[in-house]
Amino acid sequence: MTQAQIGVTGLAVMGANLARNLARHGHVVAVHNRSHHRTKALVEEHGDEGTFVPCETPEEFVAALERPRRILIMVKAGAATDAVIEEFAPLLEPGDMLVDGGNAHFLDTRRREAALRERGLHFVGAGVSGGEEGALLGPSIMPGGSKESYEALGPLLEDIAAKVDGVPCCAHIGPDGAGHFVKMVHNGIEYADMQLIAEAYDLLRQGLGRTPAELADIFAEWNSGELSSYLIEITAEVLRQVDAATGRPLVDVIADRAEQKGTGRWTVQIALDLGVPVSGIAEAVFARSLSGHADLRAAARGLPGPSGVPAGAVGEDFAEDVRRALYASKIVAYSQGFDMIRAGSAEYGWNVDPGVLATIWRGGCIIRAVFLDRIREAYAAPDKPVTLLAAPYFAEALTLAQDSWRRVVAKAAELGIPAPGFSTALAYYDGLRAERLPAALIQGQRDFFGAHTYQRVDREGSFHTLWSGDRTEIGS
Amino acid sequence: MTQAQIGVTGLAVMGANLARNLARHGHVVAVHNRSHHRTKALVEEHGDEGTFVPCETPEEFVAALERPRRILIMVKAGAATDAVIEEFAPLLEPGDMLVDGGNAHFLDTRRREAALRERGLHFVGAGVSGGEEGALLGPSIMPGGSKESYEALGPLLEDIAAKVDGVPCCAHIGPDGAGHFVKMVHNGIEYADMQLIAEAYDLLRQGLGRTPAELADIFAEWNSGELSSYLIEITAEVLRQVDAATGRPLVDVIADRAEQKGTGRWTVQIALDLGVPVSGIAEAVFARSLSGHADLRAAARGLPGPSGVPAGAVGEDFAEDVRRALYASKIVAYSQGFDMIRAGSAEYGWNVDPGVLATIWRGGCIIRAVFLDRIREAYAAPDKPVTLLAAPYFAEALTLAQDSWRRVVAKAAELGIPAPGFSTALAYYDGLRAERLPAALIQGQRDFFGAHTYQRVDREGSFHTLWSGDRTEIGS
Repeated sequence: MTQAQIGVTGLAVMGANLARNLARHGHVVAVHNRSHHRTKALVEEHGDEGTFVPCETPEEFVAALERPRRILIMVKAGAATDAVIEEFAPLLEPGDMLVDGGNAHFLDTRRREAALRERGLHFVGAGVSGGEEGALLGPSIMPGGSKESYEALGPLLEDIAAKVDGVPCCAHIGPDGAGHFVKMVHNGIEYADMQLIAEAYDLLRQGLGRTPAELADIFAEWNSGELSSYLIEITAEVLRQVDAATGRPLVDVIADRAEQKGTGRWTVQIALDLGVPVSGIAEAVFARSLSGHADLRAAARGLPGPSGVPAGAVGEDFAEDVRRALYASKIVAYSQGFDMIRAGSAEYGWNVDPGVLATIWRGGCIIRAVFLDRIREAYAAPDKPVTLLAAPYFAEALTLAQDSWRRVVAKAAELGIPAPGFSTALAYYDGLRAERLPAALIQGQRDFFGAHTYQRVDREGSFHTLWSGDRTEIGS
Repeated sequence: MTQAQIGVTGLAVMGANLARNLARHGHVVAVHNRSHHRTKALVEEHGDEGTFVPCETPEEFVAALERPRRILIMVKAGAATDAVIEEFAPLLEPGDMLVDGGNAHFLDTRRREAALRERGLHFVGAGVSGGEEGALLGPSIMPGGSKESYEALGPLLEDIAAKVDGVPCCAHIGPDGAGHFVKMVHNGIEYADMQLIAEAYDLLRQGLGRTPAELADIFAEWNSGELSSYLIEITAEVLRQVDAATGRPLVDVIADRAEQKGTGRWTVQIALDLGVPVSGIAEAVFARSLSGHADLRAAARGLPGPSGVPAGAVGEDFAEDVRRALYASKIVAYSQGFDMIRAGSAEYGWNVDPGVLATIWRGGCIIRAVFLDRIREAYAAPDKPVTLLAAPYFAEALTLAQDSWRRVVAKAAELGIPAPGFSTALAYYDGLRAERLPAALIQGQRDFFGAHTYQRVDREGSFHTLWSGDRTEIGS
């Protein structure tokens, strides 16, 4: 009997497509699903794409796999993942590998990895990005876990991953939760990127009065330049789409409530613990939740906007200003995301290589973009940048963009068009480059009401002014 | 032997000052501290202020209290609080009360309350705001826990709380973690308020070229109007302070790194779980953490700001514009905070009355302000506002302020002065009042790459466009 090189359990769209991708690459794939009809359907519909070994029970599934066994779990994050682990782990032998390809929280992955290591098993938390199509045609894959597990697993995953310039979009990220951590940040960046694109669309539409079809042309054009990316490409596609039922642009028929599944929120929550300002991601998450608060929006709808904004308040070069503002804001969002990865890697001792991440995000994943190649180059330079903003290419890009960026943020405020993503990115840029920040006043206030002390610019130590006494300063 | 009405354990500044406040109000106060010398020092220094019963051991302390016993715990949040609870709980009898007056996380308070309820004891998580001076002279107190415990405890706490128009700044907030939850949000609002003041200072200083002493006059003047508040008052004091060692304004000698202790961060993390956009608080937390990233700031310092901003780019009415922008941004920050309290109250079934909160925050606490009376009035109206922004007084204030607000945000962008708080507040205002948001485009993108579906404006259901097929729409 043929032994399968890898098994996939959980055959919803993502799992099924990854299994097909593996089979199409010549691997023998054992497939299993809690309800067997899905397994049968997969093999019936796609059995000609390669060699599948359909298995009805966990025991059958485990027996079908060559050793060390590689089992890819594609079920819902959370309790379902734990249940599947508990179902399979007792059937496995030392050295076998369980791979979680869902969007697990990296702290869950750390817990599971530690528990399974105790039992002699490898647990690999692997971020997989690219959506349904990516899973089938080549996703970006971010596996964490032991180096040993990557030796056995890497070749298969690299085989089915997207390729850019012949380089697979898959690499070992680091121990335990590193893979799911970087996938989480990837998704956070994706939130920020989508919010920025949405703001650019809104500004162009309201500011220039263009139709969605005209805007589709603009985005398509942008996609041939430095903004070239999957998200810009599909923005043009969505804006060009006409609703068959009404004949209206589809974007005007879709309810303006953006939903979210959690990874953006997690990114911000963890960034707060790590002390990394990821304001671009936070504003994106908040903008989505704001859009869903129907009650607040209904109550606020009558509040006034700017009075008497003249027609033609915005000139024809506004589109180019918006394009540059979008690029500059995007640089900030990615820079914040990479800062967070550096902080997480330091906190958990993962030694994540940011250049490797930029490399494997160039293709397959949702944030794939020409832009990532610029980030890869920045980290390949002999002087690794402390912040991407200061890397030569990006510093130059920001220098070129900043006047446009300032005009767009100012114009959004004047026109009453919400641009939280553009605004926070510019404020971050101006904050980071500031010689002095008003944080000194905040420290003074804190010392006043809470005796929290402050530090001085001219000597070491902690100091406190006796605010309710004679206002002399005491040092400690 | 005199039985004490209440006991305080943990005699660092906050605990000692609350004990003194209680004694000054004629209550017999048992005092206890892990190291007895603090207890002795308190009684030696302040024994003439009232009747203290110094106790060396927990047993002695518990025996000194009349029943039902009221024990106020004033130790560090976290493990120290659990340790003290475990030390005292076994010595107590059914109906006795343990009150945690520290800044505990409300989820810890929920856990502790449930555990002690099982043992027949009351546990009261009480937020206390006002700093050291407030603790001594009259803080704002936010006790959670059972109604029964408030009956026994309320009169004492109301006695020592600040009073505004004869009304004590203390009221029963709601069950279990409600008190610590609202104290957390109070602190989050405090972060936002301080950040906004710091931005106003920075804009006036850089924009108008005023000295700190001149700015102190401006803030002192503002303190006589609608902005009248403790934080504006102490801002003037801090700005007026001259450093004795250098003769320079103290604010220029204080290192510009703002620190934080956690409640601001918690507020944002919990708001994300509750789905409430608290962008004003988030930007304040991020601005503090940005200020502390010396490495990023050093790397970014050479990045260019706006080129050739002309002298006199800002007119004399800029100060009044900033004052209005500050007021409008403050309204947004408080509105977001009160939204979060509503959401938390609904999530945990607390039935918190926002009008009561506004009432007890008018005095004693750090965010005390005339402004809170306006919020109290808004919630006292027959039609409770869904969002404070839409309550008549605030809607009117925003209408008056918005043109100034827009000019200030625009000017900050043009001048290169970071104003994340002002910007996010305006973006929130414009987002909430928007007829349509570009969230529709985001839903379209999500449907494109992840088949996440969307809703339509014209009929019920979930819909998906077959983006990689013939682009027809399927409903579900």
